[in-house]
Amino acid sequence: MKIWDKGIAVDKKIEQFTVGRDRELDLYLAPFDVQASRAQANMLAAAGLISAAENTQLQQGLGELEQQLEAGTFVIEPEYEDVHSKIEAYLTEKFGDAGKKIHTARSRNDQVLTALQLFIRDYCRRTASRTLELVEVLLTKAEAHQTDLMPGYTHFQAAMPSSFGLWFSAYAEHLLLDLSLFEAAYVVADQNPLGSGAGFGSSFPIDRQMTTREMGFGNLAVSSVGAQMLRGKTERTLAFALAGMAATLAKMAYDLVLYNSQDLAFVELPAAFTTGSSIMPHKKNPDVFELIRGRCQVLQALPNTLLLAAAGLPSGYHRDFQLLKEILFEPMTQLLDILDIVLFALPELRIKPNLLNQAKYDAVFSVENINQLIQAGVPFREAYKQVGRAVEDGSYQPHREFQTTHLGSVHNLGLAEIRDKVVRFRNGSRLSAPQKGN
Amino acid sequence: MKIWDKGIAVDKKIEQFTVGRDRELDLYLAPFDVQASRAQANMLAAAGLISAAENTQLQQGLGELEQQLEAGTFVIEPEYEDVHSKIEAYLTEKFGDAGKKIHTARSRNDQVLTALQLFIRDYCRRTASRTLELVEVLLTKAEAHQTDLMPGYTHFQAAMPSSFGLWFSAYAEHLLLDLSLFEAAYVVADQNPLGSGAGFGSSFPIDRQMTTREMGFGNLAVSSVGAQMLRGKTERTLAFALAGMAATLAKMAYDLVLYNSQDLAFVELPAAFTTGSSIMPHKKNPDVFELIRGRCQVLQALPNTLLLAAAGLPSGYHRDFQLLKEILFEPMTQLLDILDIVLFALPELRIKPNLLNQAKYDAVFSVENINQLIQAGVPFREAYKQVGRAVEDGSYQPHREFQTTHLGSVHNLGLAEIRDKVVRFRNGSRLSAPQKGN
Amino acid sequence: MKIWDKGIAVDKKIEQFTVGRDRELDLYLAPFDVQASRAQANMLAAAGLISAAENTQLQQGLGELEQQLEAGTFVIEPEYEDVHSKIEAYLTEKFGDAGKKIHTARSRNDQVLTALQLFIRDYCRRTASRTLELVEVLLTKAEAHQTDLMPGYTHFQAAMPSSFGLWFSAYAEHLLLDLSLFEAAYVVADQNPLGSGAGFGSSFPIDRQMTTREMGFGNLAVSSVGAQMLRGKTERTLAFALAGMAATLAKMAYDLVLYNSQDLAFVELPAAFTTGSSIMPHKKNPDVFELIRGRCQVLQALPNTLLLAAAGLPSGYHRDFQLLKEILFEPMTQLLDILDIVLFALPELRIKPNLLNQAKYDAVFSVENINQLIQAGVPFREAYKQVGRAVEDGSYQPHREFQTTHLGSVHNLGLAEIRDKVVRFRNGSRLSAPQKGN
Amino acid sequence: MKIWDKGIAVDKKIEQFTVGRDRELDLYLAPFDVQASRAQANMLAAAGLISAAENTQLQQGLGELEQQLEAGTFVIEPEYEDVHSKIEAYLTEKFGDAGKKIHTARSRNDQVLTALQLFIRDYCRRTASRTLELVEVLLTKAEAHQTDLMPGYTHFQAAMPSSFGLWFSAYAEHLLLDLSLFEAAYVVADQNPLGSGAGFGSSFPIDRQMTTREMGFGNLAVSSVGAQMLRGKTERTLAFALAGMAATLAKMAYDLVLYNSQDLAFVELPAAFTTGSSIMPHKKNPDVFELIRGRCQVLQALPNTLLLAAAGLPSGYHRDFQLLKEILFEPMTQLLDILDIVLFALPELRIKPNLLNQAKYDAVFSVENINQLIQAGVPFREAYKQVGRAVEDGSYQPHREFQTTHLGSVHNLGLAEIRDKVVRFRNGSRLSAPQKGN
Repeated sequence: MKIWDKGIAVDKKIEQFTVGRDRELDLYLAPFDVQASRAQANMLAAAGLISAAENTQLQQGLGELEQQLEAGTFVIEPEYEDVHSKIEAYLTEKFGDAGKKIHTARSRNDQVLTALQLFIRDYCRRTASRTLELVEVLLTKAEAHQTDLMPGYTHFQAAMPSSFGLWFSAYAEHLLLDLSLFEAAYVVADQNPLGSGAGFGSSFPIDRQMTTREMGFGNLAVSSVGAQMLRGKTERTLAFALAGMAATLAKMAYDLVLYNSQDLAFVELPAAFTTGSSIMPHKKNPDVFELIRGRCQVLQALPNTLLLAAAGLPSGYHRDFQLLKEILFEPMTQLLDILDIVLFALPELRIKPNLLNQAKYDAVFSVENINQLIQAGVPFREAYKQVGRAVEDGSYQPHREFQTTHLGSVHNLGLAEIRDKVVRFRNGSRLSAPQKGN
Repeated sequence: MKIWDKGIAVDKKIEQFTVGRDRELDLYLAPFDVQASRAQANMLAAAGLISAAENTQLQQGLGELEQQLEAGTFVIEPEYEDVHSKIEAYLTEKFGDAGKKIHTARSRNDQVLTALQLFIRDYCRRTASRTLELVEVLLTKAEAHQTDLMPGYTHFQAAMPSSFGLWFSAYAEHLLLDLSLFEAAYVVADQNPLGSGAGFGSSFPIDRQMTTREMGFGNLAVSSVGAQMLRGKTERTLAFALAGMAATLAKMAYDLVLYNSQDLAFVELPAAFTTGSSIMPHKKNPDVFELIRGRCQVLQALPNTLLLAAAGLPSGYHRDFQLLKEILFEPMTQLLDILDIVLFALPELRIKPNLLNQAKYDAVFSVENINQLIQAGVPFREAYKQVGRAVEDGSYQPHREFQTTHLGSVHNLGLAEIRDKVVRFRNGSRLSAPQKGN
Repeated sequence: MKIWDKGIAVDKKIEQFTVGRDRELDLYLAPFDVQASRAQANMLAAAGLISAAENTQLQQGLGELEQQLEAGTFVIEPEYEDVHSKIEAYLTEKFGDAGKKIHTARSRNDQVLTALQLFIRDYCRRTASRTLELVEVLLTKAEAHQTDLMPGYTHFQAAMPSSFGLWFSAYAEHLLLDLSLFEAAYVVADQNPLGSGAGFGSSFPIDRQMTTREMGFGNLAVSSVGAQMLRGKTERTLAFALAGMAATLAKMAYDLVLYNSQDLAFVELPAAFTTGSSIMPHKKNPDVFELIRGRCQVLQALPNTLLLAAAGLPSGYHRDFQLLKEILFEPMTQLLDILDIVLFALPELRIKPNLLNQAKYDAVFSVENINQLIQAGVPFREAYKQVGRAVEDGSYQPHREFQTTHLGSVHNLGLAEIRDKVVRFRNGSRLSAPQKGN
Repeated sequence: MKIWDKGIAVDKKIEQFTVGRDRELDLYLAPFDVQASRAQANMLAAAGLISAAENTQLQQGLGELEQQLEAGTFVIEPEYEDVHSKIEAYLTEKFGDAGKKIHTARSRNDQVLTALQLFIRDYCRRTASRTLELVEVLLTKAEAHQTDLMPGYTHFQAAMPSSFGLWFSAYAEHLLLDLSLFEAAYVVADQNPLGSGAGFGSSFPIDRQMTTREMGFGNLAVSSVGAQMLRGKTERTLAFALAGMAATLAKMAYDLVLYNSQDLAFVELPAAFTTGSSIMPHKKNPDVFELIRGRCQVLQALPNTLLLAAAGLPSGYHRDFQLLKEILFEPMTQLLDILDIVLFALPELRIKPNLLNQAKYDAVFSVENINQLIQAGVPFREAYKQVGRAVEDGSYQPHREFQTTHLGSVHNLGLAEIRDKVVRFRNGSRLSAPQKGN
């Protein structure tokens, strides 16, 4: 049996090929399509394009769908090719003509786009919130391990004394920085495309500023041609944000995989995060962190895949855009899953003490030896040579006593200053402000 | 409801995260794992590591699994994390110790890798065969349309007279060329890694040349360290092949999407390959070709995604490799599906006649006008100026009579020469030679 | 001078291979290294690590280098491997020990990084300013061409009436949106890494908040480990911004290349932006826009190239980072060049009038025909069928009179609303606020 | 001073923008354009399109240019926009009309393409030859170090005994395999496009099979439309080959960077390949191998950059293709440089002996301990548990005596079998066969 030889007739294949995985992927969009349809109906009523009574019916029907979504009973039956057909059919079956009228002055293009904008905007805020939790955990760990020294590496060579305090707080600051790309994605997603129709507007007397307010969008995507051009751009901008954060998490995971080896042996990973080997009884493989690393490297390929999907397309809608959903949606979930797993793993991480007492790391104190000689009046160049010779001929004795004072150094982590950055972010960012709209 | 908030406990999430989609993806590998297990068992018996009776049992059990695979009744139950566990469990339940012994001198690493090599090798041959069918169809179309002229474009500007004969035969030659990358992928996949264990061999007295012969591999991946390093390389090489062919198909699809517009209007697409619009009754949208184009552009992102998944990994097995399966397998099927659809669509394609009679294309004959003047004794530079002035002031009259003689030109397509290339490929390529091994 | 020269003869190729193109690329960084060295000297004086007199000397020497940079006479002679060696040598030759002391509590790692941060921060602001100029030009063109109708395309099929007003204003809004990624890059570049040394700080009593103020950085990169981790991240974030804007410009260029073809013939490109053909006297090839498109597609590959350069690197400095400069710097210049060229070209662009009078575009009015029937009491479904039949049998008569009212539609471009977005951006963005620091 | 503000007028910028770096890059193509022009002139003479005397002149002029190229005195003066203009001007200045006639029935498109095909075909052979040298060096090292054991890693965890013999021979086999992609690139480059003109042939009675023979091409790119479509494809296929080999070399470099750390300390790098630190006297940084790794990761981004440059282009020539030269040519040189450096470095590499005597690697023998127990009659499952408990409670004693017998294992490297692969490659590959043509 070959899996692709299912004896499916070519016509069926074409249908499958064009529908793709829409039904499955559209579940992500369902709540947002309902939200947008509520705004659309209210606006149509205000503009006199439907009656107040029709709007009441539509709002009731959409409310029922919301309840199904909450309860997890919402289903897109096989006879509908996507969530949008399903919702319209539901309203039409219940309310006849009123149901059909919800699509007045709306086309599939702006409808899908509006749901996507709302979905991605919401995702940015959810991810920011989860990320800030992780920042908190990292700062707590930094505080707990501020006296746990480790060798600091450059060129993969043990170079100078560092600490787990510096290591944990580094990742805290970086995850916070990673949110700046989510803020950019938020800005792009925060443009209301509803009413742009197939990309050229319509002659219906609709009120696009009203739907903008109703859905709590920060801006209207004014030009209908421009609104349509958001397709691809919002997805791409979010992909940049996912990739940026993934780069940080991949680096952290790579560090931990190395720190878990017999050669470095800096950490002990929580049992749930390692696996054994069927033939080697001594193995504690860091599979979860390898998979986080791998998954996060794959996430970094996402912007490029999205770019290629839409590369070389002039303005206007093209069916190629449909593929963006299947490319983007799963990675969105994956990043949240990874944040969850890291949030769970970090508190369990055990740090090995006294790592710098090992002879192989003696030379990381050489800079301190030099500084000691300088303080004793030896010029730098001479001190450098003296210590270098000692390392070479084996007579070197590490000067283990050292004290740093500046912000961001081993003995002054500056955690208060980092926490202050977090507070400023929380106060200033659109990602953490209370959401507008209904 | 948010789709990723399923209230799943973190432990469960970790299990899901590490198992990933193995059970689903491993169905692709099942027949090849059975094939490799047959070779393994025969070799173990020959080496005296299992008895002849045990081998008989194992071959019988593996034969049953083959029948299940043929019949489509083979299932990987939820209690097994992958196809390999499932097969071993099946043999162990049936035959006790004999079942367990099949894993002697084999580790999960070389087992997965062997199945992958067999799977990809087989895929290369299947794809080559389908591609050659398409080449045939294209040559038939080229022959049928050799007198159907069309404007040839450079810089998106109508430039010179061309023909659908040239266009169809161009894609025939290119698809044939695309198989050279499949040949490279075949060469890499045609290395037997079985017996390399976890990447460092074992002290069992196994015969790796015997399994090489049994599975019809052209070569043994000799160094066990090198055998393990095939992981990632075989996938990447195949991805290059997929991307290369996808580039050709994307270009063809893009051509057809343009040719279907009101502005060019060169072709009429088969009805099954267009869709209408819910609001514009005049639309015949070329959705299938847009999706082929989009899908083929996404396929071109595949090598990069695979590269990133394994970038920065030193030698030896890493769990990150598991992700390569989910990245690669679906695109493999997608390319075959696209070939199927193109095979079905091309014969249906209707070409509009007499395209070059339209006034907007008059200037494509300007080169012929110049040649005519040259033959009348006007120097090239002067003839060029004269015709240029005529085009500019509107007095230009196209010289529509032209006759080409050289191979690969409008009036001499050289289809026999192209068919000869196909024959030489069929005779010389490992992709079309009868498969060795059992 | 090689800083790590141990008197070992090194093969010429190896030297070339390791130095790479540093000398050439470092010219970009020179002004920023001078700026950072000024801040460093002031801080060392304030911390008592150098004397006030030494600081005066250093500031004088750095002032001289600034003048050389202004005058274009600054040169990195072949004996220096990079700009940093050159500047230190200059100061040391002039002032002896004082010159050497500027490197106190600084390592090459944080020095390069600080210059990079300043350079990229400055670049983001310069690009934003140029982009806002282009937005202005686009809005002016939109206003001038609000009555120039064109067919609006979906699926490359003429679909509905659109206008050049909508087209120009679409790109204005999108370029404005593209600045949100530059804002993200600015945030990441606006972190001061100075004092983090080789990535683990030092035991010198330096004041990192003072250098932060001196250079006008919005934030201190507190953790020294985190500061070092900015390497790669700032470049990557900027690359996302370049790629995002390039995607917009590529689409605009692609549109114009198509609009310039004989088949669409919507625009006439300025003469300086087209080239002829040596053999076809009628050609007006849109080479500049093709190269903008091509260049902008290549710019979209930039993030991926940067990602791969640093993929799979754990925390800490690695020499691989050196390559990021040569990958990033030229594309930075290219984007500015492209903005320049587009700024120059757009005002010259001639739009062909009355495009929608052509019969091939009659059907774009079909939606208006349907609306007309609806207003006459025909139900939508029936009106759709009627118009569809008319299109099919050739009896269709386009209803060319149509009037749109909503924001962002053909007859109501909403330019005031778009201009208001620009004002809000100018007032709210870090990219346009007056720069702090000296 | 900002480097991009050179006060260049926009017109100048446009010229620069369109010419790009052609003059510099075309030096790579010069010898091949001369070669193709010789074939073209001979064919024109045979077809009666130029006289025998004219051909004699042209061959003489082209011979002079060949001598200039040999002597390194060939220059493309600033007045020529590319190598092709230069060569034509040279012939025209010398021979008047005869010089102009060489361009008969040739357009810039097929001329550039032909030179590119010849250049890339030649490059593939050169790279193959250098690679085979490296394979030889690796096999020699494998032989020399067959008894130097090292820990074999999986999941970055010391897993089982391995050896430098296995490690060196692994890379030998892989580099050989990497040549299969160069073979694919060769096949694509081995198609003669000359005579396809601007992509649609011409009405001149040229003999394309004669130029195919003259230049030693294996095949004629028959369809003129297809010949033009080689642009982008040949470059892309070569990029795949570069990326594939780069992946192998990046892995080797990463291994060596790790092996050079204090934690693993497996190798001592040759002095010329390490650098020191200006502040840490103990550092021996593996900069060259880091740069090889970084460069090779960047090379892996090349296919994607090329793909994006030409993504979304329908058939026919587009000016965007010009960018492919600047994207591809430098990386081609870089790979050869890297091969050179590795060829120089490997023989100097010192391996540390007795690595497996370190206690931290004791557990890598656990599989051997289990096998010992099995031979003593303990069932596998029980033996596994016993050894596992011993590792856990510290009572474990490694069973260091082990003997492997199978091909590709520690004690049986199978170097003869690998050498046999090399011989079969040399005999069978187009990359090593003597070149045809003149």
